[in-house]
Amino acid sequence: MSPGPGDELPAVDLRSDTVTRPTPAMRRAMAEAEVGDDTLGDDPTVRALEARVAELLGKEAALFFPSGVMANQTALAVQARWGSEVVVEGGAHVFHFEEGAASALKGLQLHPVPTPDGVLRPEHLDAAVRPGSRYLPRTSLVCIENTHLASGGRVIEPDQVRALAEAAHARDLPVHMDGARLWHAAAASGRPLTDYAEPVDTVMVCLSKGLGAPVGSLLAGPAEVLEEAWRVRRRFGGGMRQSGILAAAGLHALEHHLPDLPETHARTLRLAAAFDALPGFRVVPPETNVLLVDLEPGGPDPTEFLNFLRFDRILMLDFGPRRLRAVLHRDVDSPAMARVLDSLARWGRQAGAA
Amino acid sequence: MSPGPGDELPAVDLRSDTVTRPTPAMRRAMAEAEVGDDTLGDDPTVRALEARVAELLGKEAALFFPSGVMANQTALAVQARWGSEVVVEGGAHVFHFEEGAASALKGLQLHPVPTPDGVLRPEHLDAAVRPGSRYLPRTSLVCIENTHLASGGRVIEPDQVRALAEAAHARDLPVHMDGARLWHAAAASGRPLTDYAEPVDTVMVCLSKGLGAPVGSLLAGPAEVLEEAWRVRRRFGGGMRQSGILAAAGLHALEHHLPDLPETHARTLRLAAAFDALPGFRVVPPETNVLLVDLEPGGPDPTEFLNFLRFDRILMLDFGPRRLRAVLHRDVDSPAMARVLDSLARWGRQAGAA
Amino acid sequence: MSPGPGDELPAVDLRSDTVTRPTPAMRRAMAEAEVGDDTLGDDPTVRALEARVAELLGKEAALFFPSGVMANQTALAVQARWGSEVVVEGGAHVFHFEEGAASALKGLQLHPVPTPDGVLRPEHLDAAVRPGSRYLPRTSLVCIENTHLASGGRVIEPDQVRALAEAAHARDLPVHMDGARLWHAAAASGRPLTDYAEPVDTVMVCLSKGLGAPVGSLLAGPAEVLEEAWRVRRRFGGGMRQSGILAAAGLHALEHHLPDLPETHARTLRLAAAFDALPGFRVVPPETNVLLVDLEPGGPDPTEFLNFLRFDRILMLDFGPRRLRAVLHRDVDSPAMARVLDSLARWGRQAGAA
Amino acid sequence: MSPGPGDELPAVDLRSDTVTRPTPAMRRAMAEAEVGDDTLGDDPTVRALEARVAELLGKEAALFFPSGVMANQTALAVQARWGSEVVVEGGAHVFHFEEGAASALKGLQLHPVPTPDGVLRPEHLDAAVRPGSRYLPRTSLVCIENTHLASGGRVIEPDQVRALAEAAHARDLPVHMDGARLWHAAAASGRPLTDYAEPVDTVMVCLSKGLGAPVGSLLAGPAEVLEEAWRVRRRFGGGMRQSGILAAAGLHALEHHLPDLPETHARTLRLAAAFDALPGFRVVPPETNVLLVDLEPGGPDPTEFLNFLRFDRILMLDFGPRRLRAVLHRDVDSPAMARVLDSLARWGRQAGAA
Repeated sequence: MSPGPGDELPAVDLRSDTVTRPTPAMRRAMAEAEVGDDTLGDDPTVRALEARVAELLGKEAALFFPSGVMANQTALAVQARWGSEVVVEGGAHVFHFEEGAASALKGLQLHPVPTPDGVLRPEHLDAAVRPGSRYLPRTSLVCIENTHLASGGRVIEPDQVRALAEAAHARDLPVHMDGARLWHAAAASGRPLTDYAEPVDTVMVCLSKGLGAPVGSLLAGPAEVLEEAWRVRRRFGGGMRQSGILAAAGLHALEHHLPDLPETHARTLRLAAAFDALPGFRVVPPETNVLLVDLEPGGPDPTEFLNFLRFDRILMLDFGPRRLRAVLHRDVDSPAMARVLDSLARWGRQAGAA
Repeated sequence: MSPGPGDELPAVDLRSDTVTRPTPAMRRAMAEAEVGDDTLGDDPTVRALEARVAELLGKEAALFFPSGVMANQTALAVQARWGSEVVVEGGAHVFHFEEGAASALKGLQLHPVPTPDGVLRPEHLDAAVRPGSRYLPRTSLVCIENTHLASGGRVIEPDQVRALAEAAHARDLPVHMDGARLWHAAAASGRPLTDYAEPVDTVMVCLSKGLGAPVGSLLAGPAEVLEEAWRVRRRFGGGMRQSGILAAAGLHALEHHLPDLPETHARTLRLAAAFDALPGFRVVPPETNVLLVDLEPGGPDPTEFLNFLRFDRILMLDFGPRRLRAVLHRDVDSPAMARVLDSLARWGRQAGAA
Repeated sequence: MSPGPGDELPAVDLRSDTVTRPTPAMRRAMAEAEVGDDTLGDDPTVRALEARVAELLGKEAALFFPSGVMANQTALAVQARWGSEVVVEGGAHVFHFEEGAASALKGLQLHPVPTPDGVLRPEHLDAAVRPGSRYLPRTSLVCIENTHLASGGRVIEPDQVRALAEAAHARDLPVHMDGARLWHAAAASGRPLTDYAEPVDTVMVCLSKGLGAPVGSLLAGPAEVLEEAWRVRRRFGGGMRQSGILAAAGLHALEHHLPDLPETHARTLRLAAAFDALPGFRVVPPETNVLLVDLEPGGPDPTEFLNFLRFDRILMLDFGPRRLRAVLHRDVDSPAMARVLDSLARWGRQAGAA
Repeated sequence: MSPGPGDELPAVDLRSDTVTRPTPAMRRAMAEAEVGDDTLGDDPTVRALEARVAELLGKEAALFFPSGVMANQTALAVQARWGSEVVVEGGAHVFHFEEGAASALKGLQLHPVPTPDGVLRPEHLDAAVRPGSRYLPRTSLVCIENTHLASGGRVIEPDQVRALAEAAHARDLPVHMDGARLWHAAAASGRPLTDYAEPVDTVMVCLSKGLGAPVGSLLAGPAEVLEEAWRVRRRFGGGMRQSGILAAAGLHALEHHLPDLPETHARTLRLAAAFDALPGFRVVPPETNVLLVDLEPGGPDPTEFLNFLRFDRILMLDFGPRRLRAVLHRDVDSPAMARVLDSLARWGRQAGAA
């Protein structure tokens, strides 16, 4: 990452909410964490975090992982049998951003179903779930993502989750929810996390995104599934030792950072309004902390615009041809927001003058 | 398979062209075949068939397989690296009818691209081939199917094959063609097989469908690719012994049955016209030997119609909700055609009377 | 295979019993076979063969495969879970001659146990079966080979099979028997095949070795296991069409060739005696149709000896440093045996003279 | 872990060196670490650790992993092709303690070679590396472990490493060294780490064992191999975010803990002497920090002895029938050693009295 001039200023990093850095208080919590060898089952802080997350999600148990990718892939590996098919929404992280892991590691065929809005619905299952025929692959799992990153952090509401899960269960198919940003769904709607998690069998949540912990994700679900997940986690190389250091950051984040998400959402809306006011930019109305901005045909050149921002030490990402992405998070504070809005205003004036 | 009454009559089997039975002359060819242990490289008839197919397709070499599934999967396994992605057309046989083998056996993620007509075009690659980023899966192969079964035996013409192959090669991606029914493409257009095969890297052809041999498919391509395919075939359990028995049937079919395909296509058109004349039936205009028949909403009940045919000892298949499939082949001779047309006419009269 | 001069003579091929060629009567049986599309469940000859083999082995059902490799690997894939361990004898075909298929295709770790004689015994399981600990791989299957090729076609007697199977079952582990040459075990001992097959869960038998059919192996076992095996066979590409052609040869072999195995064993003993009489050669006393011949240190040069035989158009194989292998079979008739014995005698005179 | 009475005393934990807890100074280093998003390439502390380890091992580059299992498995996955065979010493961690990962995840067949002392030598390759034949699996990698845990922390000396690597390279086979405890080899011999690492292609080292960091391992080797390893690490779910927190502990350990290993080795010798003085106990003479203690036949009962220790809040592990294991590490300080020696003395007196 080599930003432009103005090196004295810290970058405003809108590339992802994974860039958040631990606060002094969180660092203190880590430094003081009681730890043990978690592979031997002896880390009390990991145990506490797993219990806390299971409780928040209303699940029997939870297991700590070094990444969301591994927690997702473990959920798939444990619940879908070798050679079977997993139905996923067409823009899903597990299909696009996990290095083909489900196929490479467990021999699963992903069956992506394109949707206009990232929401997998019961009627999609009618077409995508295979009839019981020995000439066809066997469907073994349905996977949803909430919030849905590729559609701009879209919330799948509890009723929608429940409808889908019921349609899947009626076919004897378990449901996994990639809830890397599920905290945002609950924050946006004011509904408890359990409303989202209860209908599905397993759910993955990340501590290292909006919550601002450095490392860690959890998979929650039935104790029996997680017992088997323990082995798969070790097979994937996710068994760690004194990981209570990391778990302490997670516990701190759940207590101190979770309440701040609505403010992040408010800033996302403010940024959306600023983009919308610019000629040639059109935003996908944000529901949480992800903002997709489309550049109209004949409008601004994406590379030119990204470079303009970079000169001001503001970082955004390409997210498809003529689509940009900004992800808001707790490290984008008021002064940082002011810098971004100021840059956009300058771009607007420049464009108007041209 | 338990057909209705009238057991004295042989069934007219339109379920697939895989049902064809060897003729007396073909059986004679098998009975007289010179054979050896093919796993030890000693079967002269298998060698002759491999040479003949390589020549017909204009490829350096060919390898004999017990099935088209195995020949396809070997082509994928050899040309696509572990954990990478293979772009396939959305209705492809390798995605729907091969038991998830590419993912299960070689750890490949299939990336299905829906198309209206079964033809994968260069512009589809723009969207489906992954940009070179370490955050994304690596695309390693493009796979097309010609003729394309799911769209009704559609022919992908040499220019279309070439355009796609050039677009793939420009991205350093090899192309595999599932040509289970490639013979039909050539027969329909009058173009030589080499026009279809030349632009792609590997091509699979089946002897056990329209050509009427009992067992066998071949993979043709560069000698180096096939050298590696030999090992993969053995790993999959496709190394056989005196398989010259089967190869003899293939050589016989290439000499004696290949010229008959245009007649099968003519019968397919005749059957299409008969269906089109019936109220509530709409055919997908056939190009080769596969006929898709859609039942209009509110029109005939598919199960009732299939049972009506079955009573006359005529077998067709469901191929989606309110879509039926008939596949014509060399065992549907003139008397058989007459029986089918007669049944349709009776259904029409019955429906008119109702 | 390029043999030496004397091309007018047919080779006496002792490389393997896979080289046997179909007899005229067997060819006739194939030419007259009633067939259908076996993938659609419609081939009566395949059905008859499967029923006959299930009956001979005393199992609920059997399934036809294009090779023993595929039947073995299907047995492993169906009975051993992903990521688990399969205990095999150290010289097993599945470990040495199946291209790493169990690991490559189903993700199984083979745990080879060296034995002096090819016989896996209950005490080997004490060491090789993993204790139930989540820090260790999970053992899921035990695999034996009978007769055992690498030790010279050694017979594992029914009591030994039963003792091992009981030890495995006591640990809730199923047992698969690679019985590619199980016919020989029964022929050598005069015990029925069921005595060998009954204690184990699944058993694979080959038609294309001593029995002299061109292609084909069967997996026999519980109907439920074979139902799942059907899918795995199709995934591996082993689903064939009018395979009744091949099954007819198998049925013929079971009726007409099975009784001839004792004669093959007698010839193997005669060949063993001839080798033993030569200075510098030491045989592993044969029990069935496989003869291992060790060349004493400082004794004959293996390449020189193989070339000497090859000049007489007699083919044998290297089978390790200073170890040769001859496999007897029904195509080594009396005149062929006479030629071999004559060659050995000449080598002996030559060596004596030197 | 539920120890016996005496809960006020901290346990002396000899089960593994993975149980070490971070010191206050190490916690401070973590709390003050400069961090960034390592998946985006932005964590300066991870970069610094990777550079430091590459330098210590004399390799072009290094990559940080959440565990030694993952670093080992990534080395295998990147250097060994699908379906090939990896030669490993018979007691190797990758074969016994990594949940069958090499087979499950990359489809590799491990070929374990039993040795008396854990040292894989060139002559072992003569037997275990497959000749180039298409009937045999392809060997693609050789893997050694240094120090070798199962034989009691045995050091494979630089000359032995070099001899093996030369024999492997002469066959075009790369060599991976599982150097989870390589620090101990260097500390024991006084030779630099580069002497051990130079002959091999890739080497894995762990920070979370004797060095006392909470989490983390590194894979070092050629930049090109590590570039590919980056993708595999992400596929396995080992891509982390602000992992500089963990890397800071590693850097601290390399600076402050590495010099303490000789003291741990001295304590191991002292413990060995104490065991040797007891009737019925026989130690495997330790070379580094691992002590294997065999209980003579008819001698002490292992469970009784472990319970005796546990009552004194001293933890050791079973490591096979009638074999116990103690692993020394930096958290076993002088008072802890005194407690252990005192317990052994009391056991001795008790046994003498009985």
